[in-house]
Amino acid sequence: MLRTHTCGELTIADLNKEVTLTGWVQKSRDLGGMTFIDMRDRYGMTQLTFNSDDDAEMRAQARELGREFVIKVSGKVIERSNKNLKMATGEIEIKVSKLELLNPAKLPPFLIEDETDGGDDLRLKYRYLDLRRNPARNNLVLRHKMAQEVRKYLDGMDFIEVETPVLIKSTPEGARDFVVPSRMNPGEFYALPQSPQTFKQLLMVSGFDRYFQIVKCFRDEDLRADRQPEFTQIDCEMAFIEQEDILNVFEGLIRTLFKNVKGVDLAQVPRMQYTDAMRLYGSDKPDTRFDMKFVELNQIVKGKDFPVFDQAELVIGINAKGCAEYTRKQLDELTDFIKRPQIGGTGLIYMRHAADGSLKSSVDKFYNEDDLKKWSEAFNSEPGDLILIMAGQTDRVRKQLNELRLEMGNRLGLRDKDKFAPLWVLDFPLLEWDEDSGRYHAMHHPFTSPKTEDIGMLDTNPGQVRANAYDMVVNGIEIGGGSIRIHDRELQSLMFKHLGFSVEEAQNQFGFLLDAFEYGAPPHGGIAFGFDRLVSIFAGLDSIRDVIAFPKNNSGRDVMIDSPSTIADEQLKELKISTTV
Amino acid sequence: MLRTHTCGELTIADLNKEVTLTGWVQKSRDLGGMTFIDMRDRYGMTQLTFNSDDDAEMRAQARELGREFVIKVSGKVIERSNKNLKMATGEIEIKVSKLELLNPAKLPPFLIEDETDGGDDLRLKYRYLDLRRNPARNNLVLRHKMAQEVRKYLDGMDFIEVETPVLIKSTPEGARDFVVPSRMNPGEFYALPQSPQTFKQLLMVSGFDRYFQIVKCFRDEDLRADRQPEFTQIDCEMAFIEQEDILNVFEGLIRTLFKNVKGVDLAQVPRMQYTDAMRLYGSDKPDTRFDMKFVELNQIVKGKDFPVFDQAELVIGINAKGCAEYTRKQLDELTDFIKRPQIGGTGLIYMRHAADGSLKSSVDKFYNEDDLKKWSEAFNSEPGDLILIMAGQTDRVRKQLNELRLEMGNRLGLRDKDKFAPLWVLDFPLLEWDEDSGRYHAMHHPFTSPKTEDIGMLDTNPGQVRANAYDMVVNGIEIGGGSIRIHDRELQSLMFKHLGFSVEEAQNQFGFLLDAFEYGAPPHGGIAFGFDRLVSIFAGLDSIRDVIAFPKNNSGRDVMIDSPSTIADEQLKELKISTTV
Repeated sequence: MLRTHTCGELTIADLNKEVTLTGWVQKSRDLGGMTFIDMRDRYGMTQLTFNSDDDAEMRAQARELGREFVIKVSGKVIERSNKNLKMATGEIEIKVSKLELLNPAKLPPFLIEDETDGGDDLRLKYRYLDLRRNPARNNLVLRHKMAQEVRKYLDGMDFIEVETPVLIKSTPEGARDFVVPSRMNPGEFYALPQSPQTFKQLLMVSGFDRYFQIVKCFRDEDLRADRQPEFTQIDCEMAFIEQEDILNVFEGLIRTLFKNVKGVDLAQVPRMQYTDAMRLYGSDKPDTRFDMKFVELNQIVKGKDFPVFDQAELVIGINAKGCAEYTRKQLDELTDFIKRPQIGGTGLIYMRHAADGSLKSSVDKFYNEDDLKKWSEAFNSEPGDLILIMAGQTDRVRKQLNELRLEMGNRLGLRDKDKFAPLWVLDFPLLEWDEDSGRYHAMHHPFTSPKTEDIGMLDTNPGQVRANAYDMVVNGIEIGGGSIRIHDRELQSLMFKHLGFSVEEAQNQFGFLLDAFEYGAPPHGGIAFGFDRLVSIFAGLDSIRDVIAFPKNNSGRDVMIDSPSTIADEQLKELKISTTV
Repeated sequence: MLRTHTCGELTIADLNKEVTLTGWVQKSRDLGGMTFIDMRDRYGMTQLTFNSDDDAEMRAQARELGREFVIKVSGKVIERSNKNLKMATGEIEIKVSKLELLNPAKLPPFLIEDETDGGDDLRLKYRYLDLRRNPARNNLVLRHKMAQEVRKYLDGMDFIEVETPVLIKSTPEGARDFVVPSRMNPGEFYALPQSPQTFKQLLMVSGFDRYFQIVKCFRDEDLRADRQPEFTQIDCEMAFIEQEDILNVFEGLIRTLFKNVKGVDLAQVPRMQYTDAMRLYGSDKPDTRFDMKFVELNQIVKGKDFPVFDQAELVIGINAKGCAEYTRKQLDELTDFIKRPQIGGTGLIYMRHAADGSLKSSVDKFYNEDDLKKWSEAFNSEPGDLILIMAGQTDRVRKQLNELRLEMGNRLGLRDKDKFAPLWVLDFPLLEWDEDSGRYHAMHHPFTSPKTEDIGMLDTNPGQVRANAYDMVVNGIEIGGGSIRIHDRELQSLMFKHLGFSVEEAQNQFGFLLDAFEYGAPPHGGIAFGFDRLVSIFAGLDSIRDVIAFPKNNSGRDVMIDSPSTIADEQLKELKISTTV
């Protein structure tokens, strides 16, 4: 090693040791005949001192060192006169006797400090400099630590990590595949996996019993702030289990992660039916850090000649505790919020439960004091509370009120990043109607098992069929989801039929799985966690981009290496493809 | 869980317990009024008994169970009358009181047993059945265990696992890239990484200090038995180090793996100069499980009017100990062996050192007894030894004799799969001449640092320039290789120039790395191990295919899922490409 110690480890216990350190110049300052340099590496920061009285030439060299220069110094550990007890190394400094410049540095395009002046684009282009900043590096260290903990836990539970292939087969179901032209099989293509779903099921057929993999997956979808074309899953599958076993094993995983990585003791993870989640929160991933459940008002508000309520399929509201004193302006903001096109609400009704106990609504014309008392009872409102009510088509108004609820949670400071509320959401619908294609799609994927007692409804009422499917939600974010799988060829074929596959299409795309089910497939099920998302929650971040070492921008470009890019004609010729741009 | 115990855990200590087991029917046999079934799962095998006297109907059901049926049984653990002490569960059996068929099975196309009757093609097509066989599954369990040990060791040494991107940029240098058309950037392509080389170097520039990753890499090369289009590397990099540090850390990794996974205590790994490896073994990856070093004979054999030796650049031989009694037929076989086109030898000279001490060569016409005594001295031959000699152009004859040496090693049983001889080969040449392109290529890769003292020869004698590059070899197989990298923009630009890059090409393809070197790049270096290869050596296998869960065949096809395959016209249209087959 070029160093004897790192920049993070020397303390008063090392006094008078002769040491050699390497690292980057964080900053330097002159004071009389002295130069002080803060030298940084991954492990910390150490102060170096150069004194003209001791070695004028070396001190002159030290003064020439710019930010981010890479240096190697030898010297003696001495006690600082001016201690900084906030730093691990703050009681000592190195009285340098030898200075070596390992590499100079141009001035970085932004500050390499915890708070930087660099914009997103600049930091992406110079990601290797951005990653020098402690918060950026700490995110990846956290990611490493979490991956290690995941593996330790699952290995300890007899799970085997198996690498499944990256060059697989394109299937039209689901999101768009990235494809890879095959030179050796001209005109044919591999696809990159959206998940190792079928392979992990085959491993169960093979008797692997407990499989996991921390694995890259790929989706060629239009990108939003929080989507990346390549992302990482903790992918898991178990055989000879029931849903309850999966819930227990993976609740254990999440609790272990919180305990070992964040030092947080989670209580047992509560469970909620999908239908309850939709009814009480208007979302299949409710943020349960705060209460503010939906209250349905049809029984109370209809028949009072207020057409908005009378004509609505559902009238529903929340109790914003302590908000009775909201000003007109604040209430207008809320109305504007729910009227934004991405939410699409039509209007907001409110009732103030004033500090003096009086009730006053924005629709006093239609509802008298007795009516409002009923409202108050329904919401359990107390003096000081503000009731916010919306009306409309059931699914739509629930989604809209969910947005308002989350907004109120933000305004009231109820969504604390240091608080964690995990939740199992259970019994998802098997199918969901897709407006674009005019048919049902698998809500989870085509391999999810319907509840036995609901199979009969596949023909009569497909939208009502429930699946043995479950999501884990933390703080309103879906971090994982899975299901008990079909392990029977006939039921799987029936599912494909209901998803619009012809017999030939099913055989052509998934014949290997249907065949496998005939050779002794055990009951099995599994789950996959979005690892980028999970790390971002642990890091207290809103975006997954900051927990990915080299992320792509919203156009799917890596602006640092300038990819994608054109390739040589010779490459295209060898692959027997041409571009049609 | 559907079971209370696995099929591998019940022993005499569990006598009289009521248990429930699940698994596959391995085989069944009838004996009088009894049926015995061996039931298998990942963890082992347990014998089940069904007795007509107890339950004739259930026994009749049991008789109907075929191989590979999936069943669930409940019953009591009883002592076997006929114990099998070779099996962990061989002292007990389950007296079944309840039998449930979980899934029937068609008769598998080959035997699910340690020794199977299935050919390669059939087993690849039904890989999910092949993986039920213990040897196949054990290879993947070994792989899992090794990956866990690698991570534990490196994590313990402060290495951080960082995921680098899979969708990167195509570069013409090196092997052929797999490419991925970008829908969002029409006419442009990502490439799949052949290694994360530049990314790990950027992480060093970022100050990550110690990086590793167990990572999939991709090469679109024509496949041989032992190549796969996707393969896995243990990829590592360290900053502020010298070559010695890398050798120590990764020798430690390999020794830890051997110790913890195979229970083998390796001695310190010997080191050999590349030039010595070529001189003494004719290979940069010598199998040092056995000695049989090359002896150079130019000094002794020239000038005796034997034209083959006189005209040869190098005359060189090995001592095949104990082979003096080889028959004419055996010697002809060896001559045929070295004359095979893939070896290309022209002839084989031999000398027998007979048991009576006499020396007799195949070229007695030219060499008298005194001459042969000198040969004997040069080879340290003893009575009973056979000296095998070849002549020709230096590089070529060394390679040929290397093949002969390995063949003799095989014939003499000196290449024991349970013996492990690791070796560091050091100081590889920086460049190698490529006949096809008529220019020098980087032997390792363009980022490898030349030895400082040799840089002057880049212009005058490029083939002689040595690199700070090293390989780890085990039993004649390269398991890993790496180098100290260039961390200086000017030297890197000089290297690109010598590799035939124009300034524009270098900037276009690797500008981000050249730029990064100007912002304070630390000295760094690393290594990558071929993980598939490493596992196959630990498993005692010749091919990497058996340590990969779902391998591709020699045409790059996954015959199980039938990939690659054609894709929909709609997909091609969206990607703005067309096939030109």
